[in-house]
Amino acid sequence: MKIPKPTVKRLGLYYRCLSRYKEEGVNFVSSQDIAERLNIKPSQVRKDLSYFGNFGKRGLGYSVNKLLGEIAFIIGVNKEWNVAIIGAGNLGSALANYPGLLKHKFNVVAIFDNDREKVGKKIGGITVTHISDLKEMVQEKNIEIAVIAVPESAAQYVAEQVEDSGVKGIVNFSPIKLRVNIPVEDVDITLSFETLAYTIIMGDNAFILEDDE
Amino acid sequence: MKIPKPTVKRLGLYYRCLSRYKEEGVNFVSSQDIAERLNIKPSQVRKDLSYFGNFGKRGLGYSVNKLLGEIAFIIGVNKEWNVAIIGAGNLGSALANYPGLLKHKFNVVAIFDNDREKVGKKIGGITVTHISDLKEMVQEKNIEIAVIAVPESAAQYVAEQVEDSGVKGIVNFSPIKLRVNIPVEDVDITLSFETLAYTIIMGDNAFILEDDE
Repeated sequence: MKIPKPTVKRLGLYYRCLSRYKEEGVNFVSSQDIAERLNIKPSQVRKDLSYFGNFGKRGLGYSVNKLLGEIAFIIGVNKEWNVAIIGAGNLGSALANYPGLLKHKFNVVAIFDNDREKVGKKIGGITVTHISDLKEMVQEKNIEIAVIAVPESAAQYVAEQVEDSGVKGIVNFSPIKLRVNIPVEDVDITLSFETLAYTIIMGDNAFILEDDE
Repeated sequence: MKIPKPTVKRLGLYYRCLSRYKEEGVNFVSSQDIAERLNIKPSQVRKDLSYFGNFGKRGLGYSVNKLLGEIAFIIGVNKEWNVAIIGAGNLGSALANYPGLLKHKFNVVAIFDNDREKVGKKIGGITVTHISDLKEMVQEKNIEIAVIAVPESAAQYVAEQVEDSGVKGIVNFSPIKLRVNIPVEDVDITLSFETLAYTIIMGDNAFILEDDE
């Protein structure tokens, strides 16, 4: 089963929305309910959820519990992931302390840097390790995800070391496209500012509201 | 002219890719050249650029200079933007020191917090101001963009204060959907981890490679 990337991104949003419904004691929701809470179109919700089989019952809507279980399985939140942060600067420190990660079962278990001044210091309860110990730590702590939070100039070199260490995937905060053979998810902070700038300039005419796949 | 949101996101990537070509002294590029550097499909590049008129010359490709100018105008990088960061914690500090923002003409001119312990301290050369002075500072410093980097529980309240202050748009790092009437661009860090987790689990079958509009 292949799922369009924008759908996968929305699954995370559906998961949180449904979790809140569950907390509120709601057992069934309509695509309209979900769409309204998330500010998207009901047809988009129906299309996205149709990839996962027919959970909706005519008249009743979707079972909150069933849908939560399915989405959790698909986006991998049923599993815990051990995460290493590469780069103990401001961004790396912010991520090590980011409560949202732990909440979603992404456990930061190691922080690396090449600066001997930083090695040995504690950030968010974790001692900074020298980058030369990466491979050893990845094996020892069963690290599957690495976060690249180093300066742009070091990003590609670090990514290659990460790939070599046996890590399965990278969340990349540097603005460059990494050339590696493991999955990379880019978090491009500047792009978000540029998109907002465009929206401000264009006003209501900025975007076509349409299903994006 | 209405442009699909995924296209706008890619315009920022095209802009950087073309800037590098310019530095290398290249005058004309093909959609294939751009696509290869960015790891996307040439048909996607052609489709995206077709929104902006016909820049390509058969056989010659696109004029690097012309395209740079057009994209810069559209995504608003020709203009400088004054930015305020709300929240002087780890994330706010990381953003205040993030070199990519200044490079793209987003100037962080103010940092706000409600913690009297933090007010008066300097982060990245900027003195932290109490949030109660937000409206005054926005007018005084001509701030158009605010970054929300506060805990989830405070995000909606802060967003309303930001809207009231006259700021034109928000870059939101909190995981909640803000209910305001100015444009909001969400940067959901946890979603990136979830998307990566899904990609790792699904392997090569993870995504349909297709134009997304």
